[in-house]
Amino acid sequence: MFVPRDLQTAARAVAVFVTVALTTTVALAQSDPLPSWNDTAPKAAIVEFVGKVTKDGTPDFVPEAERIAVFDNDGTLWIEHPMYVQLAFALDRVKAEAQNHPEWKTTQPFQAVLEGDMKALAAAGEKGLVELIMATHAGMTVDEFHKTVTDWIATARDPRFKKPYTELVYQPMLELLSYLRANGFKTFIVSGGGIEMMRPWTDRVYGVPPEQVVGSSIKTEFQMKDGVPTLFRLPQVNFIDDKAGKPVGINEHIGRRPIAAFGNSDGDLEMLQWTTMAPGARFGLIVHHTDAEREYAYDRNTEFGRLDKAVDAAAVNNWTVVDMKNDWKQIFPEK
Amino acid sequence: MFVPRDLQTAARAVAVFVTVALTTTVALAQSDPLPSWNDTAPKAAIVEFVGKVTKDGTPDFVPEAERIAVFDNDGTLWIEHPMYVQLAFALDRVKAEAQNHPEWKTTQPFQAVLEGDMKALAAAGEKGLVELIMATHAGMTVDEFHKTVTDWIATARDPRFKKPYTELVYQPMLELLSYLRANGFKTFIVSGGGIEMMRPWTDRVYGVPPEQVVGSSIKTEFQMKDGVPTLFRLPQVNFIDDKAGKPVGINEHIGRRPIAAFGNSDGDLEMLQWTTMAPGARFGLIVHHTDAEREYAYDRNTEFGRLDKAVDAAAVNNWTVVDMKNDWKQIFPEK
Repeated sequence: MFVPRDLQTAARAVAVFVTVALTTTVALAQSDPLPSWNDTAPKAAIVEFVGKVTKDGTPDFVPEAERIAVFDNDGTLWIEHPMYVQLAFALDRVKAEAQNHPEWKTTQPFQAVLEGDMKALAAAGEKGLVELIMATHAGMTVDEFHKTVTDWIATARDPRFKKPYTELVYQPMLELLSYLRANGFKTFIVSGGGIEMMRPWTDRVYGVPPEQVVGSSIKTEFQMKDGVPTLFRLPQVNFIDDKAGKPVGINEHIGRRPIAAFGNSDGDLEMLQWTTMAPGARFGLIVHHTDAEREYAYDRNTEFGRLDKAVDAAAVNNWTVVDMKNDWKQIFPEK
Repeated sequence: MFVPRDLQTAARAVAVFVTVALTTTVALAQSDPLPSWNDTAPKAAIVEFVGKVTKDGTPDFVPEAERIAVFDNDGTLWIEHPMYVQLAFALDRVKAEAQNHPEWKTTQPFQAVLEGDMKALAAAGEKGLVELIMATHAGMTVDEFHKTVTDWIATARDPRFKKPYTELVYQPMLELLSYLRANGFKTFIVSGGGIEMMRPWTDRVYGVPPEQVVGSSIKTEFQMKDGVPTLFRLPQVNFIDDKAGKPVGINEHIGRRPIAAFGNSDGDLEMLQWTTMAPGARFGLIVHHTDAEREYAYDRNTEFGRLDKAVDAAAVNNWTVVDMKNDWKQIFPEK
């Protein structure tokens, strides 16, 4: 192939000029990448870590391909209080499907849901919960389930804030996701929630595509139905991506050890340990819900008490603990 | 932030000029992206498909994020004959570990391996094979297993070609992987082989990073050992990523339906069906091993007979069948 030398030289010269011009413009444009974070310790720790691992030629430098960051979802990226969003979905699905299941009127835990009897629902315990999940999450194709989730997430509203759940995501965490990606990180969700409950909307809301979502799952089966290939969701647990399951899910899906992990509860303890207790620069962060006014205050020394082990471990392992009330300027995105 | 309007306009003008200049240069530089493919039907079909889905504004256009291509590994990207590379690995591991297992001298199927008695090994059947895999693939951490694989793959040689297996990959398929990626595709491996057997080297050899490898797996367990977090490999099957398992593995890992699939055996039938039997432009391809001289001739009307269903389905579904002998100019990469 022949390219005139003049054209090559010209193109190279223009490219250099443009690079300089654009770099200048970008530098001028570079403002605070984390505007919803107060200038307290967590923000400084994040910026310091990102600066360290992206500075070529230093001992802490991490090649771009290995900059893996993992985020819990419930309580870390979006609201989880007073009820997991996925449970709200399951309860709504029971109500929507009740007409096709007359037996639910007199069978627990469905009766409790239909009658709004939260006490009876609580009494059904974990076994009841699994029954609810299987009845509402299985028995359809993956495509059908995605459509149901997409329709629900567009219309359901949080009872206190009267907003779609996808608007009750944490603005500081959205900025953090973008900031990490702008610095060459690949961002993954690693949630105890259902993987197919998240995939229909995580790209739009978080910029995290379906192939970067790890979560709990039920079994699926490939079936040819009247010559049409389908993936059918079966009422059997496949994988629980919580606690000690999180490092397992990370390894199965990502096959690399993350260098940064973000969580909010004891369910994230092992993920934080797996991510940070290794050589090289590592970063762990826990979102501590301390803001009863703008969101909720819970998780330590409350009836929930789900953050005890992780906060104790944070002190030992030098993880950053975000005090929502003091460290976040803004909680939810403005419309 | 204030950016002088003049600077903005100047930068924009220069950017447009450079885009034009570079586009011209790239067009001039564009040579054949698939030089190891003969100018026969398969190459034309590939180029036509890629042209269709990347042309914005046409009905077949597919946005970049949805350009997912899945590749089987054994027999599609690298050699699988006369023995799966992973089985060669397992046999070598039995020999290497025999000193720590004196009982293997008198226990099948290990005795057969140590004595090179392939007849006795065959007699042990699938049960024997699973025993071999568990004895050689479990009982260590994921990191330790990666190191073992890395060391082995660097030193093991194919008995006929006297080369490392990572050099017995198909040059036309390497070009195809690059060509698809250059056209905005994300390339995944979806193999019946062990996921952790591939991850240590797929990025270097195929340009496919660990997070884009799907495969069969055994269970792993998160353990804190003397304060150090580890992932330990257990002797239990977790997932078989073969046949009807392939669409399940694709959905679990990728969460999107691929638009192109590449395989070579009946183990890839369901993956090809799942990928191609859907609306929009789709592409399926089967590598048919017909070249006894440069590689091997097997898989249809041979004692292997593993391609019967897939080749029959190819005719019905308009999948492209590569006749290795006639369609590939070169089989393996030159050093």
